[in-house]
Amino acid sequence: MPIGTIQWRDARLYILDQTLLPLERRVIPLDTADDVFEAIQSLRVRGAPAIGVTAAYGVVVGLRAAQPKDTADALVVVDNTAIYLGASRPTAVNLFWALARMQRVAHRLDATTPLPILMETLEAEAKTIHAEDLELCRAIGEHGAGLIPEGAGVLTHCNAGGLATSGYGTALAMMFWAHEQGRKFQVYADETRPLLQGARLTAWELQAVGIPVTVICDNMAAHLMRQGRVQLVVVGADRITANGDVANKIGTYGLAVLAQAHDIPFYVAAPYSTFDPALCSGDDIIIEERAATEITEGFGIRTVPEGVSVYNPAFDVTPAELVSGIITERGLLRAPYGPAIAALLAATATETQA
Amino acid sequence: MPIGTIQWRDARLYILDQTLLPLERRVIPLDTADDVFEAIQSLRVRGAPAIGVTAAYGVVVGLRAAQPKDTADALVVVDNTAIYLGASRPTAVNLFWALARMQRVAHRLDATTPLPILMETLEAEAKTIHAEDLELCRAIGEHGAGLIPEGAGVLTHCNAGGLATSGYGTALAMMFWAHEQGRKFQVYADETRPLLQGARLTAWELQAVGIPVTVICDNMAAHLMRQGRVQLVVVGADRITANGDVANKIGTYGLAVLAQAHDIPFYVAAPYSTFDPALCSGDDIIIEERAATEITEGFGIRTVPEGVSVYNPAFDVTPAELVSGIITERGLLRAPYGPAIAALLAATATETQA
Repeated sequence: MPIGTIQWRDARLYILDQTLLPLERRVIPLDTADDVFEAIQSLRVRGAPAIGVTAAYGVVVGLRAAQPKDTADALVVVDNTAIYLGASRPTAVNLFWALARMQRVAHRLDATTPLPILMETLEAEAKTIHAEDLELCRAIGEHGAGLIPEGAGVLTHCNAGGLATSGYGTALAMMFWAHEQGRKFQVYADETRPLLQGARLTAWELQAVGIPVTVICDNMAAHLMRQGRVQLVVVGADRITANGDVANKIGTYGLAVLAQAHDIPFYVAAPYSTFDPALCSGDDIIIEERAATEITEGFGIRTVPEGVSVYNPAFDVTPAELVSGIITERGLLRAPYGPAIAALLAATATETQA
Repeated sequence: MPIGTIQWRDARLYILDQTLLPLERRVIPLDTADDVFEAIQSLRVRGAPAIGVTAAYGVVVGLRAAQPKDTADALVVVDNTAIYLGASRPTAVNLFWALARMQRVAHRLDATTPLPILMETLEAEAKTIHAEDLELCRAIGEHGAGLIPEGAGVLTHCNAGGLATSGYGTALAMMFWAHEQGRKFQVYADETRPLLQGARLTAWELQAVGIPVTVICDNMAAHLMRQGRVQLVVVGADRITANGDVANKIGTYGLAVLAQAHDIPFYVAAPYSTFDPALCSGDDIIIEERAATEITEGFGIRTVPEGVSVYNPAFDVTPAELVSGIITERGLLRAPYGPAIAALLAATATETQA
């Protein structure tokens, strides 16, 4: 999938500006920490894993732009850049995970390390996070593909594809994998108001590889389910807490309730970097509220009368009991999620230390 | 509520063009049956009761424009106009109800009746339907207002207000009535994709009278319910079958499922003209599918990639078992709906004949 969501070329960071898709495919450079902050905050790059990768490179970008005079100075810049970029969006935990990882790697060195070594080490770590994310996505796809029944209608929400990751995606990865095996199925993509990531991004990615996709408005999902046209719902995640509660794009929770009411399995696909063992449950997740204008004048025309209140939460929380399974790079997690998630993270930690 | 949804002035039909709201308040004349057909089909006038009233006047407009040479000719024109206008939209039964009523009144006369008498009779009948609809709405409001708990959050979908009727509305009528009594509550209006009747019309109507209203995207309703911010869901209807199944704007069924899952009462408000005793259940209702461009280019710019399929049903069916009650001009109907609906329609028929 050469989508080029995030690119590191000649020691410079580029992203595909997703706010312009599908009308225009424009790649833009991010040359300062401010550029990276703005790109994440305004959703030029979005999707929990892609935000994590971009932020990791963002530490390198910020460090280089700051032109530190020595390594001690550079370590301060790394921490400050991490704090700064961590304020760009509150919900996706991959952001904090990637920034903490970059800080950890930096602080394994000390002030006596030559500055070029620190720079190289951080660049290498960001590239590792980037490459690792693609591998995680491929593994998620392989583990999830078998969940798609032959001839099924698969409903997804928002975009959990190559554009939300280094490439290949999380929820879409299983579709790409199944499609590569020659399997037949049909995808329904919720357009996903207010910013239409499903209509603009998911439809674009699936169409590009020839997977049949039909865009619907979010409020049509229940009608499709009642008609028997949906056999599976799969979504990505922005944060999964220790008990298996899932924060994801607003509308996910409603879909999970509807899926249960229609006896349709509801799966979440995510790599280990999306789990947040520090939070006991979804009640502890900060839900980002975004600007009213995303709803009132999202596409250039005002659609809500001036002066009317708007509520615009970007995410919701789906309780673990509505989740049929969580597809990870190490396989499918089933309830009870507490021990399954702990085991996943323990295995990851062991491998990383080895 | 001097909204002026439908106006009959100096023997000429005018409507408020709802496709332009809230940005522009433009009243347009409808001088031919083609004008009326186009206005209904393109949703310049919409909402089941308003469509019925407009179609009734449309018969008068069509008859006058045809300049029949005698009464026998005029009766043929009436029937042909009714058939023609009946093809403008398939789901709202008020359309067929109003056209059949106009035909019935015309055919009570015969070819020996002077032509001016036929014309006057039909004009009077259309005005009666118009005035009656406003009375029905006021009565629905009075019967429904008590269902709104003090301080409640009330969720509604699409627009079932003055703009969907002769004035005052169906689902919104109870809000207007409660507000007139000085009651305090908060309305959440689903924006209602694809054509945003909730954002454009419902918010506009509620704001105009000072009822606090917050617009949300359709996919946010479940999140609000889970937060405990919704105590009541109320919607209008386009057709209610003999068993109490309800066709209404796409997204209504999903809301009903979500309301049940959160133990929130789900009410439907409609006058007797929205009931269709000829259909046993919602399975028999024809669901209109509308143009893909309503979804792909609804905001003036293309939001779905070229060549991607789109599914755009304008309505869905909510089964009677999800409906807590149906608010009518004669009071609240409760399950079992079959006998309750039969009794409502019998009482109406008796009164009409009296």
